[in-house]
Amino acid sequence: MSELRRDPIGGRWVIVDDDHPSKPEDFEFEPQVYKGGVCPFCYGNEEMTPPEVGVMRDPSGPANFPGWQVRVVPNKFPALEIEGELQRRGIGIYDMSNGIGAHEVLIETPYHRKDMPELLNSEIEKILQMYCQRTLDLKKDERFKYIMIFKNSGAAAGASLEHAHTQIVALPMIPKSVMEEIKGAHNYFDFRERCIFCDILRQEIQEQERVVFENQYFVAFCPFVSRFPFEIWTVPKKHSGYFCHIPQEEVQALAVILKETIAKVKNLFPGVPYNFIIHSSPVNTDTASEGYHWHIEFIPKLTRVAGFEWGSGFYVVPTPPELAAKYLREKK
Amino acid sequence: MSELRRDPIGGRWVIVDDDHPSKPEDFEFEPQVYKGGVCPFCYGNEEMTPPEVGVMRDPSGPANFPGWQVRVVPNKFPALEIEGELQRRGIGIYDMSNGIGAHEVLIETPYHRKDMPELLNSEIEKILQMYCQRTLDLKKDERFKYIMIFKNSGAAAGASLEHAHTQIVALPMIPKSVMEEIKGAHNYFDFRERCIFCDILRQEIQEQERVVFENQYFVAFCPFVSRFPFEIWTVPKKHSGYFCHIPQEEVQALAVILKETIAKVKNLFPGVPYNFIIHSSPVNTDTASEGYHWHIEFIPKLTRVAGFEWGSGFYVVPTPPELAAKYLREKK
Repeated sequence: MSELRRDPIGGRWVIVDDDHPSKPEDFEFEPQVYKGGVCPFCYGNEEMTPPEVGVMRDPSGPANFPGWQVRVVPNKFPALEIEGELQRRGIGIYDMSNGIGAHEVLIETPYHRKDMPELLNSEIEKILQMYCQRTLDLKKDERFKYIMIFKNSGAAAGASLEHAHTQIVALPMIPKSVMEEIKGAHNYFDFRERCIFCDILRQEIQEQERVVFENQYFVAFCPFVSRFPFEIWTVPKKHSGYFCHIPQEEVQALAVILKETIAKVKNLFPGVPYNFIIHSSPVNTDTASEGYHWHIEFIPKLTRVAGFEWGSGFYVVPTPPELAAKYLREKK
Repeated sequence: MSELRRDPIGGRWVIVDDDHPSKPEDFEFEPQVYKGGVCPFCYGNEEMTPPEVGVMRDPSGPANFPGWQVRVVPNKFPALEIEGELQRRGIGIYDMSNGIGAHEVLIETPYHRKDMPELLNSEIEKILQMYCQRTLDLKKDERFKYIMIFKNSGAAAGASLEHAHTQIVALPMIPKSVMEEIKGAHNYFDFRERCIFCDILRQEIQEQERVVFENQYFVAFCPFVSRFPFEIWTVPKKHSGYFCHIPQEEVQALAVILKETIAKVKNLFPGVPYNFIIHSSPVNTDTASEGYHWHIEFIPKLTRVAGFEWGSGFYVVPTPPELAAKYLREKK
């Protein structure tokens, strides 16, 4: 019989198929393909993007020319724009606002066909440092309440360009899903005076059943209430609400575990498209995020979301996370 | 500049691209293809499914043989099972339950290649009547708190079989998204003593900007806070919390508007995969659903959900609903 599981943070239920669990070879996904062509993120095409707002390069080189290792530019087709004043107004029963915000693209590497598993640890560290640097810069703008960092890799995961990149979006309000997560963590904190993520980590480390990787500073595990098969959360062992406060030794440990995690999943599912999202506390706001704990949610794109999920927020997970973790641990 | 819009029911924000709106020809989707082969939903293959639990057929014919117009069978691979007692328990910090529920499949027509736009109005009425009949039967079981009716059409929308069918799932708890919608509607009712859906309808009918179809009993419109491009809601004009209480004259009007809506969208996007979900009040529960109003949400599968949406619950809508409604109204 299948099992119903309830997310202790947000209260979401999922159905886990224990009876006929899907094996890795049962998934049909659309692998990422590199079609090539002129790429605005490659060396020599710097003038195809807006001028860089953040960069890691040999200090002697000029801006917006080859020689960089990581480069951040404003999105050429931004979902939100940085100029103007936030103006909220009503139209009858509805509420709206002009689209104030920032939308940047972080080009992770000059190499067109390299993804995180093919990069050196030191190269991934530079990407993570740049995530922090942009967050610290964007949060100086007090109109912004939430800085979201996320990666779409492969067309099926929503990437419109194949060259590895991460998006950074600064929003003038706290998104609904983030608010729910924070409220859930806060309610638990009110009740127990402990962080729910710290408690989850304690249980995961003790049980080991869902753990994929562990190092001195991080644990990567398939969450008990996964919404997607082979979903993996990477959580820092030391309690901290803000990703951008990460100390240098943790940056190194995170680069290692992130590279290993993505490599494992891509070894099991060659070319699989994926998303990851950094969940961190809101900025410039009084919204209590006490008891919140930053982490990274990684989702390989193996299944399609259908009417059941859209209608209910109830997810059906074809591979139990315990089994997914076992497949991942056993894969070289 | 793009626009931020806030859903008055659930409080979700979406970004609407007013600046560079996508036109119908800009969308790349995976059209539905009929590969054929042996189909368990076709005449003559009735023994390939579990025995029927609901059927509309010539009364003289035997059960589980050809001659039916609409046929309901238990799902051969159910996400939830009907036998047993609901047992909730904790595992450390986590909560779980055994997977009690019902999972049925309604085969909409004996014709393998027909979808709703190709059916007669009277045939669609039979489908809608069967939705009601199964709901009324399933809600006799007091373990069930929510009956969800939804359709996945086309592989990209999650359908594993190409023969037109709807799924009916009875759940032992109210799903999170449904609960949020009900709470939102209830809060509005508390504040205004009016149904929020009735107020939305009033504004939509008055403005006409987002209306696609209207008849005596129903309005179909692109919601002001669409999450997806060309999303369409069909809402009864008369306030009612429960789909299964629909009177016969409304069944006829709903068959007409549902057929017209799907036909319009498929004329604009030939072979587009889609989902629709009937949103109705919970059953067998004290949860206040005062001020709730049943409706159907229709979503053509034109875009892919990416990291931004998973991370935030914030949707980016490339075609403003006003423009989508205009394209739909103008299409023959």
